[in-house]
Amino acid sequence: MTESLIVRWHQEVEDKLEDRIVGWRRYLHRHPELSFEEKQTAAFIAAELEKLELEVRTGVGGGGVLGVLRGSHPGATIALRADFDALPIQDEKQTEYASTVPGVMHACGHDGHTASLLGVASLLSEQREQLHGTVVFLFQHAEEKTPGGAQAMIADGCLHDVDAVFGIHLSTELPVGQIGFCSGSFMAAADAFTIQVEGRGGHAARPHETVDSIAIACSLVGQLQHIVSRRVDPMQPAVVSIGKIQGGTAFNVIAEKTLLEGTVRTFDPEARDLIEQELRGIADGVARASHASIHIDYLRGYPTLVNHDKETSIVREAIADTMPDAIIKELERRMGAEDFAYYLQHKPGSFFYVGARGADERTHYPHHHPRFDIDERALVLSAKAFLSIVGQYLTKPVGTEFITTGLHSLPQQSI
Amino acid sequence: MTESLIVRWHQEVEDKLEDRIVGWRRYLHRHPELSFEEKQTAAFIAAELEKLELEVRTGVGGGGVLGVLRGSHPGATIALRADFDALPIQDEKQTEYASTVPGVMHACGHDGHTASLLGVASLLSEQREQLHGTVVFLFQHAEEKTPGGAQAMIADGCLHDVDAVFGIHLSTELPVGQIGFCSGSFMAAADAFTIQVEGRGGHAARPHETVDSIAIACSLVGQLQHIVSRRVDPMQPAVVSIGKIQGGTAFNVIAEKTLLEGTVRTFDPEARDLIEQELRGIADGVARASHASIHIDYLRGYPTLVNHDKETSIVREAIADTMPDAIIKELERRMGAEDFAYYLQHKPGSFFYVGARGADERTHYPHHHPRFDIDERALVLSAKAFLSIVGQYLTKPVGTEFITTGLHSLPQQSI
Amino acid sequence: MTESLIVRWHQEVEDKLEDRIVGWRRYLHRHPELSFEEKQTAAFIAAELEKLELEVRTGVGGGGVLGVLRGSHPGATIALRADFDALPIQDEKQTEYASTVPGVMHACGHDGHTASLLGVASLLSEQREQLHGTVVFLFQHAEEKTPGGAQAMIADGCLHDVDAVFGIHLSTELPVGQIGFCSGSFMAAADAFTIQVEGRGGHAARPHETVDSIAIACSLVGQLQHIVSRRVDPMQPAVVSIGKIQGGTAFNVIAEKTLLEGTVRTFDPEARDLIEQELRGIADGVARASHASIHIDYLRGYPTLVNHDKETSIVREAIADTMPDAIIKELERRMGAEDFAYYLQHKPGSFFYVGARGADERTHYPHHHPRFDIDERALVLSAKAFLSIVGQYLTKPVGTEFITTGLHSLPQQSI
Amino acid sequence: MTESLIVRWHQEVEDKLEDRIVGWRRYLHRHPELSFEEKQTAAFIAAELEKLELEVRTGVGGGGVLGVLRGSHPGATIALRADFDALPIQDEKQTEYASTVPGVMHACGHDGHTASLLGVASLLSEQREQLHGTVVFLFQHAEEKTPGGAQAMIADGCLHDVDAVFGIHLSTELPVGQIGFCSGSFMAAADAFTIQVEGRGGHAARPHETVDSIAIACSLVGQLQHIVSRRVDPMQPAVVSIGKIQGGTAFNVIAEKTLLEGTVRTFDPEARDLIEQELRGIADGVARASHASIHIDYLRGYPTLVNHDKETSIVREAIADTMPDAIIKELERRMGAEDFAYYLQHKPGSFFYVGARGADERTHYPHHHPRFDIDERALVLSAKAFLSIVGQYLTKPVGTEFITTGLHSLPQQSI
Repeated sequence: MTESLIVRWHQEVEDKLEDRIVGWRRYLHRHPELSFEEKQTAAFIAAELEKLELEVRTGVGGGGVLGVLRGSHPGATIALRADFDALPIQDEKQTEYASTVPGVMHACGHDGHTASLLGVASLLSEQREQLHGTVVFLFQHAEEKTPGGAQAMIADGCLHDVDAVFGIHLSTELPVGQIGFCSGSFMAAADAFTIQVEGRGGHAARPHETVDSIAIACSLVGQLQHIVSRRVDPMQPAVVSIGKIQGGTAFNVIAEKTLLEGTVRTFDPEARDLIEQELRGIADGVARASHASIHIDYLRGYPTLVNHDKETSIVREAIADTMPDAIIKELERRMGAEDFAYYLQHKPGSFFYVGARGADERTHYPHHHPRFDIDERALVLSAKAFLSIVGQYLTKPVGTEFITTGLHSLPQQSI
Repeated sequence: MTESLIVRWHQEVEDKLEDRIVGWRRYLHRHPELSFEEKQTAAFIAAELEKLELEVRTGVGGGGVLGVLRGSHPGATIALRADFDALPIQDEKQTEYASTVPGVMHACGHDGHTASLLGVASLLSEQREQLHGTVVFLFQHAEEKTPGGAQAMIADGCLHDVDAVFGIHLSTELPVGQIGFCSGSFMAAADAFTIQVEGRGGHAARPHETVDSIAIACSLVGQLQHIVSRRVDPMQPAVVSIGKIQGGTAFNVIAEKTLLEGTVRTFDPEARDLIEQELRGIADGVARASHASIHIDYLRGYPTLVNHDKETSIVREAIADTMPDAIIKELERRMGAEDFAYYLQHKPGSFFYVGARGADERTHYPHHHPRFDIDERALVLSAKAFLSIVGQYLTKPVGTEFITTGLHSLPQQSI
Repeated sequence: MTESLIVRWHQEVEDKLEDRIVGWRRYLHRHPELSFEEKQTAAFIAAELEKLELEVRTGVGGGGVLGVLRGSHPGATIALRADFDALPIQDEKQTEYASTVPGVMHACGHDGHTASLLGVASLLSEQREQLHGTVVFLFQHAEEKTPGGAQAMIADGCLHDVDAVFGIHLSTELPVGQIGFCSGSFMAAADAFTIQVEGRGGHAARPHETVDSIAIACSLVGQLQHIVSRRVDPMQPAVVSIGKIQGGTAFNVIAEKTLLEGTVRTFDPEARDLIEQELRGIADGVARASHASIHIDYLRGYPTLVNHDKETSIVREAIADTMPDAIIKELERRMGAEDFAYYLQHKPGSFFYVGARGADERTHYPHHHPRFDIDERALVLSAKAFLSIVGQYLTKPVGTEFITTGLHSLPQQSI
Repeated sequence: MTESLIVRWHQEVEDKLEDRIVGWRRYLHRHPELSFEEKQTAAFIAAELEKLELEVRTGVGGGGVLGVLRGSHPGATIALRADFDALPIQDEKQTEYASTVPGVMHACGHDGHTASLLGVASLLSEQREQLHGTVVFLFQHAEEKTPGGAQAMIADGCLHDVDAVFGIHLSTELPVGQIGFCSGSFMAAADAFTIQVEGRGGHAARPHETVDSIAIACSLVGQLQHIVSRRVDPMQPAVVSIGKIQGGTAFNVIAEKTLLEGTVRTFDPEARDLIEQELRGIADGVARASHASIHIDYLRGYPTLVNHDKETSIVREAIADTMPDAIIKELERRMGAEDFAYYLQHKPGSFFYVGARGADERTHYPHHHPRFDIDERALVLSAKAFLSIVGQYLTKPVGTEFITTGLHSLPQQSI
């Protein structure tokens, strides 16, 4: 029986793999790498997968790693994805596994995603006999930085022959033990922009001979608040955030240039268009008002992440059935973005949250915070959730009732 | 006769020293060093002075260089000062003598001050027989950065036995050929401040869980404009400038901290006090309005530079008499600051401007601009002006009419 | 049969009443009165109801008018509501029925609500024989101004014995012919606030001797934008609008006081609390930053309007069944507020929209706009919708299937 | 002897006229009239002058009053000017002579100027025998509101045959007993502007359908601060003040239009041009950034008031000589403006300050403040100062030394 097999796998993760998963996570946490620069991390993952005798492909879509585990029996192909890049944030935690790289930190839990999925690969690599079909392990680089790694990995064939794709995100919003789902539109479209304000440098004591790019940029930031507060339909969730500002080099020199970097989040395509247009209009107006020239690069980023209804409910039930202690949580859509959205534009699947907030206050910081940390019990839970999915899709012979009806839009496939 | 001697000196500078002065200036221009870090520059100056067989003292007040040239006859002691530090600005000029140090540049003409004064030392070192008294060459480090080098050099004795002190500033405000004077209050008091806005970091898509230090800092900068526009007596010249802003590390992470650096310029002590107090009040209010904490370091910098009336008119006349082609210009007081102010708190003296704006547009940029450059003909004129001063004070035997009346507040001295 | 009766009523409205309804509407449109000052309007309505020989009560809850029409047969009691106050807006339309009162205007369609409901009363007053139960006509004053007329009318007994309550709003958002429904939370909670910025007056040429309440109020308005753009969860619809600003009396005198008036809209009680608290916090911070004193009056206004599911679907179906040309539209919840919300806190019922946007551009202005106007065909449609409701509830003998199940929470009543 | 005559006049003012002057002032204070609407005030003044049997002309330049007193002997013609309009400010004083007109107030001391000058006229009307020449009493309307009354009165001939013109201003800046002078440039050029921000009205709950003229106007006011803080040479005194803002009619309606009114003060014509141009540029930029249209009316107002050196020193000495208790104060130039400037463009003369600040705190408010009041002892002192001037110019026979040299640029006149 499938369920008893999964229960056994779950037990095995707890008994034999927890320490290794935690170890992997801490190793990765100590050695974070920025998006598109994850050389060591990718090599580390590839080496682990090689040990497990999976078919390994590196440099997928530039920096991704693919591991393929073929079961002994024919069946569907399920992709499981973990991302592995870190953020340009200075780790402020006081722990032995804090980042050793100045200004770089796993402040979003990707280290945990990767460690958990390595645990899953490790366990399943010894269960080939039980598997009816194939598991594709997608270790993805560069989730945090537009254009992201997913698109390139897809273009490089990572979803070839894949029937459904699944991913998780650890979340300090949810207590450990909760697993959160949301059918349909779940995460926002995310755009990135840079704004370069170019004034005229000069002596700070003679402002009238200059065009003060800092004063102008600050005025611009003030006016950008009006986009969300006045110009977007209040019924439409929208965010315009400036994450970075940099201008000038000395206290007594007027800054020639000031650079702003930010992000826009929306669900509605019209709101997305409106915001880009307003942002350009405001910049244009501020430039006119101030003798500065202002240049905007606006980069459309990840689209809205839309979970497929069928796969979401299959996964929700599979987990509810096999993880009796887990608390299933229905989530509202949220402003965060994920390039997992691209996988879901190509294949059915679902992306869900695994709670990582413990009793300890050190696990209560929001994602992207310099003190962000997780309750590591969430790692095993993540691995178990992945295993429940694999159990649901790949442990029954082809032709049994579930598979024939279970895979969305796949009737034409010869599985 | 004194005047004919000076005319001879001037001729000699033009004929024999111009190339060397320009060479020194370009060498310094190519190798700028930031305030308080001018190791190579100081060593270079000291080496040149050693060649001239002056008495040389290095490390004066930390990083200054003193050269003493004793004339063959007794007399007064006159100090001439040149500063030699550079600014944290990226040189954007296209010339063969552009800065070779990324992000550091002589954008204020100090290289020229030093080169000219080296020329003066060079010439006078062979004129000991003509000198009734002593010339002290003050090569000062760190004029651009509070607390400046002057105070420390004074504390280290650089004005010991000095009867009067003089300094110049090259200025692209004035055409080459003009020399500008201002009796009394000439340059502003300059304070420096840093403001650290500390919010709460987090995900850029979830601003409500953060305290957005960039948005807050920008709002603060907007309100700081009110100090000058609304709160200081409009009859009181005042400047509050932010020269540097830095916040955040990534476009999609709310910045935990944003740093501002700036300067305040005033002439009136009450306005100075008011501005500091308003700046603190505004920061306090913005902090309250925004859940951020805001910390201010406010550093009182150079005081108002007050030229002594008597010395200013002596120098003005000495130059008018001996440099018939020079156009004497009466200047208004200005918002720039100078730690030369400290010398004038201890000794009588005067600080004046030497025009450095040529026909070529590349010499029309304001000071502290990334393309700042001077018309190098101003270098010889600066040297000549210094020589006119030396000629006036030190080429007549003690006891002749001028000296006994000329030196302000020196009746008790046995000259 | 009920349906044929309703069809007959509808026909009668079109044939005999349209001109009178339009006439009433235009009369009211020409003679608008501000909230709580609707003396003439109330008298006009009462006079019309008297003519119809209804039981009329005036001064209900201060300024409301109640008309009761008792059917010849026993049955339930249904209340139908129309509001009748106008707004302090200068009518800018060029029509013969434009407002004759300077600065006062029916810019929200209340004139139409009242005219339609008078039409309904007029028709039904001759159909007593057909009615099993009672119709209560609620003509309500002061919907536009907190605390509104509804609460006072309820306290004054207007819902006594009422089983269900219904109201409409004409809307230029929807084309004529559409009727819009929304079950559950439909309209936002609306709060009102005034902010008094008190500075120090004085001569405009000497700002430093004053505390400039206009500059401070403007800075405050800028910072209030941050509430929605940065501090409220972007998933929570929220609005903070300033509708009125008034400061100063002369161009050359610094304004001692500046007054702001505004509104806050939310659905979520936590967001509502947060916004009030942030508004106070920002005002406090701005006061500290500026030497002004700032006083806030924050008045909790209408709560979220929550339509009852059962009554909403009864009405939707009744209208769909009897008005075959009407296009039923499912509406999203919206930021507008309505003190109809109070009726729904006491009795089951529903509030819905009747499209009033015609082909002519003059009917395309948003509500509260100085050129707002409706397509008057919407008036008859409104009357018909009311009649469909009455038909559904009051034209079948008590004890027939519908009534016993139809009235929410009324089983215990002896109807 | 002249001086003894003046001393006698001074004594007479104190003994016989003080009560009447105070009475006039209080009467005027109770009955203030706005600029260009001073019907009653002009009539009152004319009536008083008629009683004194002066030649009286009313409606001069629209609303001014001229009184001519011809001495018994030939001589020069001296004009003395007092203005008599009030301000649109609500009087908040608690005194029996507080304004009886809601929203209108003598908050600048013009009532006192007029009362004092009536006192002077009253005294001199009985001293015709002593006078060698003519005194022209210029009672001027509308000093507070551009374009002012002075220009029109001049165009209407009020300075015809006048040799020199003098005026005073009571000032709560100076203690009673001080009289303040400033040669040359004394008061600023004053321009007036209105800015109409036109957005799109609508419902306050649906800001995205509107263009919020209040939010935009407030943003504009914020950016206008940059003109003085960043764009005008800090060495150039300059003020940009908004005295009035008015937008919207209801808390829940987005304001279609918001009106700003303000003033600009400068001494330097280039700064004046720059500010107008920057103001237009900022308005243009804000309009572009916000979809509003913004219209500016910029009205060049009173020019810089330049006191003539010779007349200023004559008056200063005449007062010093004849009012031994007065403390002569040298004043700095100031940002206030005065249309007295126009008289000085046509004739030599001087405008000076008479201290009106007493021990009582109620006399410590700045001009244009709702609690402004003067120490009434200043009234007699003002009258004495005027008498000293008349004494100096008109009590010596033509041909005596003073007159021939005293009148600036008048040698060609047949006096």
